[in-house]
Amino acid sequence: MEAQIAVAKTNKYAVTESGDTLEVIERPNGGLSVVLADGQTSGRGAKAISMLVVRKVISLLAEGVRDGAAARAASDSLYTDKQGKVTCTLNIISIDLQSGTVVLTRNNPAPYFMARGEQIDCISTPSTPIGVSRSVRPIISEIPLERGLIIVVYTDGLVHAGERVGRPMDVCTSLKAMLEDQDPSPQAVADSLLSEAIALDDGRPADDISVVVFKVTKRRGDEVRRMTVRLPISPVNS
Amino acid sequence: MEAQIAVAKTNKYAVTESGDTLEVIERPNGGLSVVLADGQTSGRGAKAISMLVVRKVISLLAEGVRDGAAARAASDSLYTDKQGKVTCTLNIISIDLQSGTVVLTRNNPAPYFMARGEQIDCISTPSTPIGVSRSVRPIISEIPLERGLIIVVYTDGLVHAGERVGRPMDVCTSLKAMLEDQDPSPQAVADSLLSEAIALDDGRPADDISVVVFKVTKRRGDEVRRMTVRLPISPVNS
Repeated sequence: MEAQIAVAKTNKYAVTESGDTLEVIERPNGGLSVVLADGQTSGRGAKAISMLVVRKVISLLAEGVRDGAAARAASDSLYTDKQGKVTCTLNIISIDLQSGTVVLTRNNPAPYFMARGEQIDCISTPSTPIGVSRSVRPIISEIPLERGLIIVVYTDGLVHAGERVGRPMDVCTSLKAMLEDQDPSPQAVADSLLSEAIALDDGRPADDISVVVFKVTKRRGDEVRRMTVRLPISPVNS
Repeated sequence: MEAQIAVAKTNKYAVTESGDTLEVIERPNGGLSVVLADGQTSGRGAKAISMLVVRKVISLLAEGVRDGAAARAASDSLYTDKQGKVTCTLNIISIDLQSGTVVLTRNNPAPYFMARGEQIDCISTPSTPIGVSRSVRPIISEIPLERGLIIVVYTDGLVHAGERVGRPMDVCTSLKAMLEDQDPSPQAVADSLLSEAIALDDGRPADDISVVVFKVTKRRGDEVRRMTVRLPISPVNS
């Protein structure tokens, strides 16, 4: 088997800094974790919050701390720092090679999406952002790594796309149509969701949007780990 | 313009843990940094060292510390921890959107490769690994971001590929041939170098090998940041 992760990420229109922060790190006992946070509001303030949260989580994961404990620690730390006045959503997607599972840790009201075999589910169990109180708990799901498994996680910019102009995005329907028709690559799924959201916002995203698609596919045949990053350089700097 | 980074990475044959650690992180003032470390020896001990070094560097970069200062701090920290008995190579490749440059920080005897326009150079200025003494300095180069710029950085597993069987790899010649013929994608360059090295080692890499290819290309046309990660899941776990 091979695990593939694809990310597509854009900023709110006319705002240079995204309030969403996403990092991928290697787990000390094997595997990878994707950590995605969306700070309250947008721009520089939101970026500072989401970076703080992601740094906290990745430094704990790097020490071998379990995902749930890392999320609780990040929540307590943010609550203490901002007296509960600032919130942030947090998703952790971990490929744990020791247990052969994907561990999903979620403090985000935005639902996520999972496909296994014929079954396609939108999971919207209520979940609160971190930093709101001393008793915030993440929702944790552990799913065996098996071929065909697809998980899609996103920030609320995707959920709210198009609302401004009265034609809200239906993420689950879009995803179902995409997956029932064909066998798209994770990057194609992420790109397609993001471009639909941007189109619904008339090309001017009303919020930062990040989409993460995780897929377990057939083995490509070698032992090589690969990563590609594409970063547009804005005209101001180019 | 668009910056693209591609990574291809494999372990020493029959060793489950790579002594090389690579992480990509977002810079607090815009842009990205790729941090690559190769710990002395191989397996679990080397992994612990390279993870320690990479964690140290990324936590400092996240606070806004300059790359050169982060490399010196990682060296002093490793020297203090291991009394100079353990060394580690370190490369930092940073896309600094504030200055519009790529900053290369290097504590690695392995050369690196740079192509700008018609000129193709292998840069092998002497450079020492970190952790060997109290006076280790990185070699720092700053290069303006311009279309067509290609930078290739690798760990010594690539340089030493094939030596065991008396047909050492000539990285610079391979790269020149590849770039003079066509306009390959960064991932194609990284994959091709790695597969040549593995073939020279008869399919059984004599050391951990990591290759990073950075390229500045024409803008794809949107404001979307993208990332793809592919992680083979070994048969033991699958």
